[in-house]
Amino acid sequence: MYISEVRIRTRYAETDQMGYIYYGHYAQYFEVARVEALRNLGMSYKELELRGIMMPVISYNINFLKPALYDENLNIVTKISEMPGVRIKFDYETYNEKGELLNSASTTLVFVNKERNKPCQPPKEFID
Amino acid sequence: MYISEVRIRTRYAETDQMGYIYYGHYAQYFEVARVEALRNLGMSYKELELRGIMMPVISYNINFLKPALYDENLNIVTKISEMPGVRIKFDYETYNEKGELLNSASTTLVFVNKERNKPCQPPKEFID
Amino acid sequence: MYISEVRIRTRYAETDQMGYIYYGHYAQYFEVARVEALRNLGMSYKELELRGIMMPVISYNINFLKPALYDENLNIVTKISEMPGVRIKFDYETYNEKGELLNSASTTLVFVNKERNKPCQPPKEFID
Amino acid sequence: MYISEVRIRTRYAETDQMGYIYYGHYAQYFEVARVEALRNLGMSYKELELRGIMMPVISYNINFLKPALYDENLNIVTKISEMPGVRIKFDYETYNEKGELLNSASTTLVFVNKERNKPCQPPKEFID
Repeated sequence: MYISEVRIRTRYAETDQMGYIYYGHYAQYFEVARVEALRNLGMSYKELELRGIMMPVISYNINFLKPALYDENLNIVTKISEMPGVRIKFDYETYNEKGELLNSASTTLVFVNKERNKPCQPPKEFID
Repeated sequence: MYISEVRIRTRYAETDQMGYIYYGHYAQYFEVARVEALRNLGMSYKELELRGIMMPVISYNINFLKPALYDENLNIVTKISEMPGVRIKFDYETYNEKGELLNSASTTLVFVNKERNKPCQPPKEFID
Repeated sequence: MYISEVRIRTRYAETDQMGYIYYGHYAQYFEVARVEALRNLGMSYKELELRGIMMPVISYNINFLKPALYDENLNIVTKISEMPGVRIKFDYETYNEKGELLNSASTTLVFVNKERNKPCQPPKEFID
Repeated sequence: MYISEVRIRTRYAETDQMGYIYYGHYAQYFEVARVEALRNLGMSYKELELRGIMMPVISYNINFLKPALYDENLNIVTKISEMPGVRIKFDYETYNEKGELLNSASTTLVFVNKERNKPCQPPKEFID
């Protein structure tokens, strides 16, 4: 199992008129969280795309316990529990500054060879 | 069961560098879809909030089959299958102009009394 | 001079905790407005890109008089006042349902040949 | 004159199918930049709102020289050149990691008393 943490400060643009962070914006936060998790593992998603591999999301789910608010410095904990094959699954937990769990989520992504537009194995270095 | 359809044209702002509609933007499309479904049932979400009831999302999940692309006129089919109580569940299917199913999703929302900040029953007219 | 109008309903996602449509979202509305203006002139921006021409924005300015609110059906009036060359300028006015002017804005875009990454003339049919 | 700098890493969500950061997203970056500039001056925008003062944007303009790309760690330089009264003006310059100037922009905001919905003077501590 691999665990990574990232801090994201919520933006005014991301609030809605309930005064909550809009439910749709967490998808962006989790994108940042998994990109940083990969970077900590020595893999740049930007370079991966330049090498012809892209990673579209094939499923995403999230359960909300409490809303995040404006100008909170969220802590997003990202876990990779299973050895990735053609697919890779990330689990996320979002905590506010008081350490309260706000939501838990997961995304599954596929490694896709851009040229052939077919699923493919992840780069060898990454598995190692 | 109640079914409603809405057309949403994808915006350039919503594309990403893969040339896909970014996976996080569907949450917005489904917001539009359920607000229009409620409007078709005679209920304005805007008025509901003015009457002191808000409807935060408590869970959201989506499975992607194919990406939507720029300037597609998507057809989003929204279903309410169960009689709503304190919670209401919406199921969605997104189709492109060729009639291909792009993804299927669902969201569960809670009726919340703003003042007391507690779950509450939906308005009587709505149930009728 | 060419004038075009488009209706855009504001989304909950686009509100902020002031209860206003966030100032940054108008750029998206104007993108929709100019794409529809071009479509009314018989030019699809999507096809233009497929033919190797893209139109990045090189300047944008906006003056706000009143905020737009949630679930308003905005009317955006788009004007092309000058014959386009390598550059094309669009002027916009946003009105709410009561007919009040909310803001006025303009964007200048450049026709760019994608392959050479150089400014270019607009397609002949468009000028005609 | 007061100068502040902030680093913002561009997100995949913010790219468009040209491979550029969408022109509309800089408004969000500048929101982050001015909020951090105010924080460096000892003023929290979040607290300001809790004290009944909000700061809507009344004008915004931006000139683009080069696009920002995915996963760039942008440096945004924010300047306050004039003593703020009821209005406050921020100037911004966005640089990429190579130190190239990508765009320059400015926003003017008004201090508004929420209760009376009228322009007001900024808090005394801030002016000091």
